[in-house]
Amino acid sequence: MKIALAQLNYIIGDFEHNTQKIIQTIQEARHKGANLVVFAELSVCGYSPRDFLEFSEFIELSEKSAKEIAAACTGIACILGLPTANPKIEGKDLYNSAWFIENTELKAVVNKALLPNYDVFDEYRYFEPSVDFSCIEFMGHKIALTICEDLWNINDNPMYTNCPMDELIKEKPDLMINIAASPFAYNHDEERVRILGDNCRKYQLPLFYVNQVGAQTEIIFDGGSLVFDGSGMLLNEMAYFSEELAVYEFDNGKVKGFEPTMHDPQNDIHQIHDALILGIKDYFMKSGFSKAILGLSGGIDSALVCALASEALGPENVMAVLMPSEFSSDHSVQDALDLVRNLGCKHEIIPINQAASAFENTMKPVFKNLPFNVAEENIQARSRAIIVMAMSNKFGYILLNTSNKSECAVGYGTLYGDMAGAISVLGDVYKTQVYKLSNYINREREIIPLNSIIKPPSAELRPGQRDSDSLPDYEILDEILFQYIELKKSSSEIIKQGFDESLVKKILRMVNVAEFKRNQAAPILRVSPKAFGMGRRLPIVGKYLN
Amino acid sequence: MKIALAQLNYIIGDFEHNTQKIIQTIQEARHKGANLVVFAELSVCGYSPRDFLEFSEFIELSEKSAKEIAAACTGIACILGLPTANPKIEGKDLYNSAWFIENTELKAVVNKALLPNYDVFDEYRYFEPSVDFSCIEFMGHKIALTICEDLWNINDNPMYTNCPMDELIKEKPDLMINIAASPFAYNHDEERVRILGDNCRKYQLPLFYVNQVGAQTEIIFDGGSLVFDGSGMLLNEMAYFSEELAVYEFDNGKVKGFEPTMHDPQNDIHQIHDALILGIKDYFMKSGFSKAILGLSGGIDSALVCALASEALGPENVMAVLMPSEFSSDHSVQDALDLVRNLGCKHEIIPINQAASAFENTMKPVFKNLPFNVAEENIQARSRAIIVMAMSNKFGYILLNTSNKSECAVGYGTLYGDMAGAISVLGDVYKTQVYKLSNYINREREIIPLNSIIKPPSAELRPGQRDSDSLPDYEILDEILFQYIELKKSSSEIIKQGFDESLVKKILRMVNVAEFKRNQAAPILRVSPKAFGMGRRLPIVGKYLN
Repeated sequence: MKIALAQLNYIIGDFEHNTQKIIQTIQEARHKGANLVVFAELSVCGYSPRDFLEFSEFIELSEKSAKEIAAACTGIACILGLPTANPKIEGKDLYNSAWFIENTELKAVVNKALLPNYDVFDEYRYFEPSVDFSCIEFMGHKIALTICEDLWNINDNPMYTNCPMDELIKEKPDLMINIAASPFAYNHDEERVRILGDNCRKYQLPLFYVNQVGAQTEIIFDGGSLVFDGSGMLLNEMAYFSEELAVYEFDNGKVKGFEPTMHDPQNDIHQIHDALILGIKDYFMKSGFSKAILGLSGGIDSALVCALASEALGPENVMAVLMPSEFSSDHSVQDALDLVRNLGCKHEIIPINQAASAFENTMKPVFKNLPFNVAEENIQARSRAIIVMAMSNKFGYILLNTSNKSECAVGYGTLYGDMAGAISVLGDVYKTQVYKLSNYINREREIIPLNSIIKPPSAELRPGQRDSDSLPDYEILDEILFQYIELKKSSSEIIKQGFDESLVKKILRMVNVAEFKRNQAAPILRVSPKAFGMGRRLPIVGKYLN
Repeated sequence: MKIALAQLNYIIGDFEHNTQKIIQTIQEARHKGANLVVFAELSVCGYSPRDFLEFSEFIELSEKSAKEIAAACTGIACILGLPTANPKIEGKDLYNSAWFIENTELKAVVNKALLPNYDVFDEYRYFEPSVDFSCIEFMGHKIALTICEDLWNINDNPMYTNCPMDELIKEKPDLMINIAASPFAYNHDEERVRILGDNCRKYQLPLFYVNQVGAQTEIIFDGGSLVFDGSGMLLNEMAYFSEELAVYEFDNGKVKGFEPTMHDPQNDIHQIHDALILGIKDYFMKSGFSKAILGLSGGIDSALVCALASEALGPENVMAVLMPSEFSSDHSVQDALDLVRNLGCKHEIIPINQAASAFENTMKPVFKNLPFNVAEENIQARSRAIIVMAMSNKFGYILLNTSNKSECAVGYGTLYGDMAGAISVLGDVYKTQVYKLSNYINREREIIPLNSIIKPPSAELRPGQRDSDSLPDYEILDEILFQYIELKKSSSEIIKQGFDESLVKKILRMVNVAEFKRNQAAPILRVSPKAFGMGRRLPIVGKYLN
């Protein structure tokens, strides 16, 4: 039996696009001699359609597309993912399903049993967990077909009280197939290889695992579909961050032509780089835009975003706007111009002095002689947002936000100012990682000017301002933030590790108080196991740790 | 037996505040002769703490507070709501629990079985559903104690496959107690009375139902705790939108001194008014602010918000900023000034001409002679946001957003401009309801100038602009939006009702395309069964209906 794994990039709710792509891939798989071609979880509608699942028309369109695909499935079998109506009166109205189609006929439907409902996942919002389990017979094989999370309940503190494979194994299948929508985080590939291998070892079965690829706003699917033998040895690891169709010959419990191999753990920074490139590319491609704009300060964050955008979209599609003020240091403009020259992207220099003076005059009757403070600082940041948004409105650019995760965490940013943007490129990248990514960008030649990398970080909103005036060193800050955000440690647990008590309490309080800002922030490309945004939901008004 | 129902306003994560309030109420209930005092769901920590539930310290603090409350519970029993650790290895780590405390001793723990995970609810994100059911014995009574959603599974298409009361009834209880966190929507009081009455009729048991009151950012708990007899007749309906402690004498299956009564359905507009007042009041009180600011255009939306804020916070705490431009009509400033005079709130007049000119000059080298378009319109809206945010930063005002639901729906608003604000007062109020609310404000005397109510709506961002240039009449628009947003109808279903096909398709497309704006909008006080925000989650990049 020849099994093709189709690792594709879907567009949420674009039934025509997804259907055509799937049908073409079926033709290609057939051409390559495949007997079965396997697509990812919710491949027909894209993952995740979120509350579109509550529209009955959306479910009807999913089923209609799946039938169209089935009709094209002559002389081959395929596995598709789609939402389907739950025929039972009791329970939620939908299942997260896999259709097994053989030679145009729907032969079996498998429904997902374990519904992830943590971090960025909301599946129990829509789906009823399945409690029926049976294997699929195909070409003399018995396939244990499961959907993503169904294989993720084997650890010492299982999140679910049941385990689908414990049921399916009773029918003595001879292979496992799992269709997934497993998003990228820099540590997630290792986790996947380990958990899926554990399944093979536990059930003594080979596994064909298909993930999807492509970014859906903030969620980035990295592909990396996997094939294991029945002893849990990894046989093949498909491409990361790109589409791939691969055909495997499976007979007598063996995958022909593949020897056990080791997962090659990539450097986190390299992976984050590739994820961000795909995230930017797909955001623009899927929303029908091609040109990006950003404010370029001469600092490291906007320089890095400019370099990433130029790589993702082509430098000719990137407009960098330099908006110096009276507080901008002499080198800032030069550093920004050096970067623009290195990248070959477009730029404009639009000083904000006139706007800042106009607001100063406008506010004079109200502010009188009150001293310069955060109000005036924010006027500068917001005037810059007006300028880049005006360019966006006039010329059709999409604004990239350049705030990093450390800033987002402590609220070091101006709402409606430098926090503006359609998508945040670095909002899940700590400042210490920003440095590493910048050095990675410069791995072959100096693209980001060394001066942008080595100078002390500053928002340049008042004379001589430095980040270190109000924040600890980023090495310390980021470690405290990581303990709190990723590891969910309490202040006392963090202090026990040797950090200064008042500093830890101050930082945690800053994080919580800034929730109102993050609530209005741009969606953030997710590259870590805990990003701000839909995967981290906190009360805006509340007192814990405030 | 005397049962006290304590309908209180909690602060999320403010353990000290909640604990003190609960202990004081226990003392008061004891003073009134109560044998048992009942508090709402998650009363110890406030509803909902959201991802704070993932911090083990938060759970420890909840249990610590509950023990402190138990220690104060001498000579009386109480029922408290709090999250507790699930001792089982399998399943999620927490339960949503009720503690039954009698004379300082924890006598029973009841865990919630049905976990709402739709609209604004995410309970399956945190909690394991209980599968163990038993009644509580107290003073010769057998109490069937359940938590909120546990009683909500009786209808023709039940969302859950089990029903806690079907289990508890086997032990032959003689009364039901339900502790809840049931948020306001203008139709929800009727629904509650019906569903809870259905439970009494089905199980032939009286019911004591305690809701909480108070706003938690966007979610507004309206109180309205209820007592039913064993035939499902309503005996008492507690206060809406305010705290109340009531003591009931329950003996021989009867509540002494109460005759069957009818639920008094309030006018929706009256309810929405009261909810918005509480929403504003609690947002400020719970976040430690007292002074509000808003831009006052002379139009109806900002006039209504100004009136509501003046009522909620006192007119002396409301600063209305008039920011006329060259496109402002003559009457706009006068209408705004009339309102300020009628309310007695503070005001400033800060024209935006200087700022707009400065941006015009600043952009000139880039925009050259390109015609005036949305770019220049948005510069005006964003300049206004800079001004009110500068006032906010300088003087500690909190900015109220004045966009209505119709505008939020179709994206008729400027991101980082008139969409700015800490909290949106009218984002869940359609324009047609804005008129009704304004007339309600004027029910005794003209507070909102009639001229603001009757003049054709306009954003006044270019000469002679009117909303009707690009939108249908609000009566038609709002009906189409209601069908799509609240009822989740497809375009074909809406068209079948007689609406113009191209109009329906255009409107639905506008709603979907504006998702990127709503994603960065202020949190919206929720008054309808389907508000924009955490209760409506849609992909930003996606093609369905775009």
